[in-house]
Amino acid sequence: MAGDTFGTLFRFSTFGESHGPAIGCVVEGTPPGVPLTVEQIQHDLDRRKPGQSRYTTQRREADEVEILSGVFEGRTTGTPIGLLIRNTDQRSQDYGSIADRFRPGHADYTYHVKYGLRDPRGGGRSSARETAMRVAAGAVARAALRHLVGEALTVRAALVEMGGIAINPGNWSWDETGRNPFFAPDPEVVPLWEACLDQTRKAGSSVGAVVAVEATGVPAGLGEPVYDRLDADLAKALMSINAVKGVEIGDGFAAARLRGEDNADEMLPGGDGAPVFLSNHAGGILGGISTGQAITARFAVKPTSSILIARRSIDRDGQPVEVQTRGRHDPCVGIRAIPVAEAMVAVTLLDHLLRFRGQCGASF
Amino acid sequence: MAGDTFGTLFRFSTFGESHGPAIGCVVEGTPPGVPLTVEQIQHDLDRRKPGQSRYTTQRREADEVEILSGVFEGRTTGTPIGLLIRNTDQRSQDYGSIADRFRPGHADYTYHVKYGLRDPRGGGRSSARETAMRVAAGAVARAALRHLVGEALTVRAALVEMGGIAINPGNWSWDETGRNPFFAPDPEVVPLWEACLDQTRKAGSSVGAVVAVEATGVPAGLGEPVYDRLDADLAKALMSINAVKGVEIGDGFAAARLRGEDNADEMLPGGDGAPVFLSNHAGGILGGISTGQAITARFAVKPTSSILIARRSIDRDGQPVEVQTRGRHDPCVGIRAIPVAEAMVAVTLLDHLLRFRGQCGASF
Amino acid sequence: MAGDTFGTLFRFSTFGESHGPAIGCVVEGTPPGVPLTVEQIQHDLDRRKPGQSRYTTQRREADEVEILSGVFEGRTTGTPIGLLIRNTDQRSQDYGSIADRFRPGHADYTYHVKYGLRDPRGGGRSSARETAMRVAAGAVARAALRHLVGEALTVRAALVEMGGIAINPGNWSWDETGRNPFFAPDPEVVPLWEACLDQTRKAGSSVGAVVAVEATGVPAGLGEPVYDRLDADLAKALMSINAVKGVEIGDGFAAARLRGEDNADEMLPGGDGAPVFLSNHAGGILGGISTGQAITARFAVKPTSSILIARRSIDRDGQPVEVQTRGRHDPCVGIRAIPVAEAMVAVTLLDHLLRFRGQCGASF
Amino acid sequence: MAGDTFGTLFRFSTFGESHGPAIGCVVEGTPPGVPLTVEQIQHDLDRRKPGQSRYTTQRREADEVEILSGVFEGRTTGTPIGLLIRNTDQRSQDYGSIADRFRPGHADYTYHVKYGLRDPRGGGRSSARETAMRVAAGAVARAALRHLVGEALTVRAALVEMGGIAINPGNWSWDETGRNPFFAPDPEVVPLWEACLDQTRKAGSSVGAVVAVEATGVPAGLGEPVYDRLDADLAKALMSINAVKGVEIGDGFAAARLRGEDNADEMLPGGDGAPVFLSNHAGGILGGISTGQAITARFAVKPTSSILIARRSIDRDGQPVEVQTRGRHDPCVGIRAIPVAEAMVAVTLLDHLLRFRGQCGASF
Repeated sequence: MAGDTFGTLFRFSTFGESHGPAIGCVVEGTPPGVPLTVEQIQHDLDRRKPGQSRYTTQRREADEVEILSGVFEGRTTGTPIGLLIRNTDQRSQDYGSIADRFRPGHADYTYHVKYGLRDPRGGGRSSARETAMRVAAGAVARAALRHLVGEALTVRAALVEMGGIAINPGNWSWDETGRNPFFAPDPEVVPLWEACLDQTRKAGSSVGAVVAVEATGVPAGLGEPVYDRLDADLAKALMSINAVKGVEIGDGFAAARLRGEDNADEMLPGGDGAPVFLSNHAGGILGGISTGQAITARFAVKPTSSILIARRSIDRDGQPVEVQTRGRHDPCVGIRAIPVAEAMVAVTLLDHLLRFRGQCGASF
Repeated sequence: MAGDTFGTLFRFSTFGESHGPAIGCVVEGTPPGVPLTVEQIQHDLDRRKPGQSRYTTQRREADEVEILSGVFEGRTTGTPIGLLIRNTDQRSQDYGSIADRFRPGHADYTYHVKYGLRDPRGGGRSSARETAMRVAAGAVARAALRHLVGEALTVRAALVEMGGIAINPGNWSWDETGRNPFFAPDPEVVPLWEACLDQTRKAGSSVGAVVAVEATGVPAGLGEPVYDRLDADLAKALMSINAVKGVEIGDGFAAARLRGEDNADEMLPGGDGAPVFLSNHAGGILGGISTGQAITARFAVKPTSSILIARRSIDRDGQPVEVQTRGRHDPCVGIRAIPVAEAMVAVTLLDHLLRFRGQCGASF
Repeated sequence: MAGDTFGTLFRFSTFGESHGPAIGCVVEGTPPGVPLTVEQIQHDLDRRKPGQSRYTTQRREADEVEILSGVFEGRTTGTPIGLLIRNTDQRSQDYGSIADRFRPGHADYTYHVKYGLRDPRGGGRSSARETAMRVAAGAVARAALRHLVGEALTVRAALVEMGGIAINPGNWSWDETGRNPFFAPDPEVVPLWEACLDQTRKAGSSVGAVVAVEATGVPAGLGEPVYDRLDADLAKALMSINAVKGVEIGDGFAAARLRGEDNADEMLPGGDGAPVFLSNHAGGILGGISTGQAITARFAVKPTSSILIARRSIDRDGQPVEVQTRGRHDPCVGIRAIPVAEAMVAVTLLDHLLRFRGQCGASF
Repeated sequence: MAGDTFGTLFRFSTFGESHGPAIGCVVEGTPPGVPLTVEQIQHDLDRRKPGQSRYTTQRREADEVEILSGVFEGRTTGTPIGLLIRNTDQRSQDYGSIADRFRPGHADYTYHVKYGLRDPRGGGRSSARETAMRVAAGAVARAALRHLVGEALTVRAALVEMGGIAINPGNWSWDETGRNPFFAPDPEVVPLWEACLDQTRKAGSSVGAVVAVEATGVPAGLGEPVYDRLDADLAKALMSINAVKGVEIGDGFAAARLRGEDNADEMLPGGDGAPVFLSNHAGGILGGISTGQAITARFAVKPTSSILIARRSIDRDGQPVEVQTRGRHDPCVGIRAIPVAEAMVAVTLLDHLLRFRGQCGASF
């Protein structure tokens, strides 16, 4: 109820502040017998790790994860999986000057109002540092999905727009996302984004981004009408990521401009009893339940609020101040949101898969 | 876990199919002592009622609600409130022809896959008829918010785009939304939309829409980091409404094109210790917690899937069929989504207000 | 969170006051395809119905239940099942004299302190009238268990002690429980209890009771360590029944007087890979998980608090008063607790069965 | 849903196996501003620590707890509190011989059936080692209760029977519980229990126990009718402790033998508007809600299942085996259940206090 937990049958609860001694989580409800190694989790964490290019924060965190429970002889036992990462590059002094002032666009003021006090070191709990544990829990979810559904199920994301510069969809290549520091699916956009970010950093500014997510091989039947629809839960999952301001499923806002006959995804008989869809405006979800098509979503990330340009604000005593963030920051938080989004989608899918199996006896 | 419940401390669970004997809900966690009459709930229901203009479905439902418990001598007792509406205009025969075929864009196929069987009468549980109970529960939430926070707290929505025709924001008037059948805040758009819908209906087609929601007077401090953020829960609340495909908080996708210094909502000292914000790109939410500014959101509604134009599909046996919906339908489901959206936002706000009070002892 | 809901994957939420217009519930998470008729539910309700013998309250309620949703052509659809019973024998005037005074042993004072106001008619929400909906939800659970596990799974309860007079365990016959108004498994105790209750009623007093519950044919594997153990959830389920003050699983308090070697239920190889247990001190649950043996529990019911003998108390203004309950009451609430206990156990078992299936893929 | 979490508004999720690298938990929903130090938590843990007398297991665990988050400058911040204890005295080899055989009275067989595999080292997740985290979370709850309600609120437990030897209630002294290794409130029973345990250990056997719990200074109004009653939640809390087989609230089973007029706790006007109760048969709870009186409960603990006496069982292949536990064990697990029970009660009270505050605005 305090918001630190995501999921129902499969769920995880995280703890930890940006500059506290450690971050960690408890993952509950993992199916037993899933092959799981620390390397698998580390692999996903490494994709999100800060300091990997000059385009993300220069904070140096090894982000070495430890599995503390729930795995025995290389397989999950069905009991809770405790995961822990020690923070190694805390620099509390970086934030001393802003301990008493509310950074515009940050959660400083709202945490202060809500809790009456706050941990100001690096944004405390509101820092994107917390998302490392989402990635770790997501790696567990991926392992379980692979075990239950098979390799056909994939969840991946790509950066499709940054600083107002969009990719060319015609160039789309998933492989390309692994070859540049932006998770861009279009090699031609990379130099443009490099120039954009270099200029942005030089100006002490920041830019926003748009991310596309896709899950393929998802069984039909996932999602609980009418409130825990798969699309509603995905919207929550993605909107819960730091700095996200908008979420679309399938055609999203563009669907509002279509006519009914154009938006309807027609069906033809498929080989195995399941239909072949002639289009996917719906993004793989109808009535809140997956259709078996690819699930597609997009989300918007606002520009990083931590900037070197001075902004007007107030301090804890209500006095006017200027705020100029020092310290190390991502000029575009959308980049590192990619593995986080994949993790949140994987967790949501696994949770709904277990719920489907629980109520309806689906055999995975 | 089966998805029929929305909310946590304040929550409601609905039941009922489009053409079953009744729909209803249980509203749990209402604060005690809230003045509540059946007329208040009926008032909100009447705004959503079908058949009020030629632009919505011609189904005739009185939508007369009954309070079965939880209210004594005009005040809530803190015990669950049972609400019931008898369906009076069921016409199961309208749907006979499509009992065995899956309407494209509808939940027919996904319900079939998930449950193995389904109630085909009027879409059964997947029908927007269920949203009447959301409006009823929302009326309880509104009454409680008024009781706890006062009249300053308002939640309202308006249709801002239909069939690709947007309002002129410069003409915005909330009062206007009560004077036309579209909840349009711009009187000049009304004749354009009338023409659009008349043409759409004539063509047997349907159109999509965009809705804007605004809540003012919301206390700062509502929202639970990091997963039950107020914006994440609003995204889920709005995405759970039938036919919604996208949700934005504040500037939404436009924020992805701003620079950090432009997106930051600067603050100046306000009279009462609270800041005065110089802009509201964030939509009244920072770090998942309300700032005290107006909460603003927008959502996209796809065109109604029930259309008179024939579409290709398959039947239960996997055979190819053509589907052409008969019966009575809304040419644009975005219109009647307005009171539903207001209800979902009111419920979400009340729930978070009680959670804030529970953990942090906020005095409302 | 307001306590009106029981269960997780399978759960029900009830509403209604003793003398309001109706009581009802929403049953969520029922597996689809379960054969279910209104007669099945009515059958269970009739076992609990008041006014069936001179040993229970003389309130005359038909307790006619209506299925409002979730069932189509005789089978559950997987969507929520709305159930409704109209109250037909309200007599609010019976309670007028005690509207302002707190009956000792009743919830009057605690509801007043908690909510600041209360519905005094017949105890309002605190009345055992609410338990009718538990029985109705339990009938749905039984139908689902029968569908998933088969007829081998039985849940039944018997009154084993009343007014300090215990049955003779050597006479135990489950069949006998259907032949007397006490659900007594021992025919010889019946005349003793009749005499006891006649004398109790004449004295305007009331007596307590002890109930034994047994579930056979329960698959091994139900129960979630370490907090949602099957025994912990059964304890909660039974303790939530009005007037219950103690719960035992298996040998219960007697186990505290055994030595380890006597308490250990030894195992021998069984025919089908499952063990044959040589005893059942544990009551069919080890480590919070069912073993496949019979699940056995007992619970204590305090004497009815509504008595004709005057007791000292205070009124709403804190002034001393005498309270003497008029109206119609059960001299021993333990009798009608029998079908309620069976229902709560059935619901708990089904919920855990679905959870087991969800996480571990058990095939039922 | 997988059972690793206890509580709702205030709740904790634990992880960790007996002989894994560490145990830990996430505590969510702690009110902000509560003074909390690691010493406070350590103090409670030390009361439960193994190896403190010859009457508990000789396993040597420092049980040093680390606070990883949620506390800043000595006060809780309202964000989740991560707690960690490294296991230092794992001896996996002690359990090698029983990895393939199911110990009677243990969870070995049921974990095997449920999960298909299990961590056999020291009972894995089913070990009472997990209860250390309950005590740690309970220390947080105590600190919060002290902060919100004051020192008047106390939660304490005492051993009142062991091996069939009961204390003399006339000798009761809470102070005495701190002066002997049994938490016995009666000094005269101590030598009897010492003799009993010495003889038990020598025989390679074990004995059961009964524990009494009392909470004083609890505000009236805690508990949610009708399913999350305070007594129902306490029953679940206590029954979830390892080896517990029965729970009583107030007079418990003895209440079943009282008459209504004797069981009713009469009230007289008290000084401050609250009543003075003339007795407390109810154990401080009416209608599931606290009355303001002392909350009293008792629970039964079965004899430890790990004994040196050989018992018949089967192995993983269904073959008959003899099982004789080696390793280090408590001859009576009831002793160390004392601080665990106090912790579970404290957590339950805080959770209900926050829920009361949330829905009803109670001012603590």
